[in-house]
Amino acid sequence: MIGQMGSFDRPSADLDDPLDCYIHGYVSSRLMKLARSSAGGEGLPLTIAATKVDGLVLSLTPFSHSYNYRSAVLFGYGQVVESDEEKDWAMRLITDSVVTGRWENSRTPPDGGELSSTTILRVRIVSGSGKIREGGPGEDKKDAGKEEVVSKIWTGVVPVWETIGEPVASKTNRVQELPEHIRAFKEGENDRNEKQAFSAANAVYPKPKAE
Amino acid sequence: MIGQMGSFDRPSADLDDPLDCYIHGYVSSRLMKLARSSAGGEGLPLTIAATKVDGLVLSLTPFSHSYNYRSAVLFGYGQVVESDEEKDWAMRLITDSVVTGRWENSRTPPDGGELSSTTILRVRIVSGSGKIREGGPGEDKKDAGKEEVVSKIWTGVVPVWETIGEPVASKTNRVQELPEHIRAFKEGENDRNEKQAFSAANAVYPKPKAE
Repeated sequence: MIGQMGSFDRPSADLDDPLDCYIHGYVSSRLMKLARSSAGGEGLPLTIAATKVDGLVLSLTPFSHSYNYRSAVLFGYGQVVESDEEKDWAMRLITDSVVTGRWENSRTPPDGGELSSTTILRVRIVSGSGKIREGGPGEDKKDAGKEEVVSKIWTGVVPVWETIGEPVASKTNRVQELPEHIRAFKEGENDRNEKQAFSAANAVYPKPKAE
Repeated sequence: MIGQMGSFDRPSADLDDPLDCYIHGYVSSRLMKLARSSAGGEGLPLTIAATKVDGLVLSLTPFSHSYNYRSAVLFGYGQVVESDEEKDWAMRLITDSVVTGRWENSRTPPDGGELSSTTILRVRIVSGSGKIREGGPGEDKKDAGKEEVVSKIWTGVVPVWETIGEPVASKTNRVQELPEHIRAFKEGENDRNEKQAFSAANAVYPKPKAE
């Protein structure tokens, strides 16, 4: 499921500002029915979790192996978006979170049937938790001091990232050249994802304490 | 969290056979405490979910966009593994699921402290559900017939897969050459993951019905 953070009231709000999480679904899906039936109160209580793995952390012993990752768990209340203006804004937000610029470069706006069959939930976040692990392995002292162990066992980080491959046109596609918004998305994502994985792999572990 | 399917009683069992799901955690983590307190009965009821995205499916309109993916949800009962033999087997199973051959190529076996601080859960699966989406976009007839739409909008699949990058040695690593088990893992995974994403992108959608 796609969840995208944003603020309809303050569209320029960034990750440092309070944001809502927007999710979408078919009008008669279980989640959307539940949300509709809990309208009136503060909304449907929801937990949203997401994780990205940035690398495999290989230490001297399996019991100190780890992952580099970024993870978040959000707790909030979901309300069905009723205003057409906010719904339109949120559908664009969600579409462009998959491929930047896709909303402008596909058949929009939605017609009446599409609008009424799609429900958007605005999840107001009340609390959350985030955890990031980056850097090389942490070793147990009992292993780090043993010559026969450290001389034989490779330790380090195997970087992991999501690659966007060369797009495959559909059988019915009639546009010969790959559009710029997809080309730019592919190159931007690959560059950003690879850099993120290596940045995590090269970080100092444990993180130095702030002075 | 790592979950790995396997059968201790029939180690040669494959994906077509009944398998248990093995997960591990720190002895005093909430999950493991709960599992221990529900020993005696059929175990701790658990739901395990996993998804892999294989591609972004771009259609004429955002309302027909989709993902290629493979997902599974398992329902079962978790029991703490008590026998040393099964525990040793499961720790190797889980370690090698991250990087094939890592158990043999790191400092093993575990010592007493490591064994007692690690709990393994064997989850007996009682039911489950799997869903796979592959192939190109499915278009709404109202769009597929419009010249001004199909002549302008690129449709197809953007393949997505997990890439394993060149391993980064830790500051304390003393093994100059990258070991063969890591090299082979990297090359095997990259080849397999890329092929999977393109195989999904090139599949026929909707899937032809069996005769």
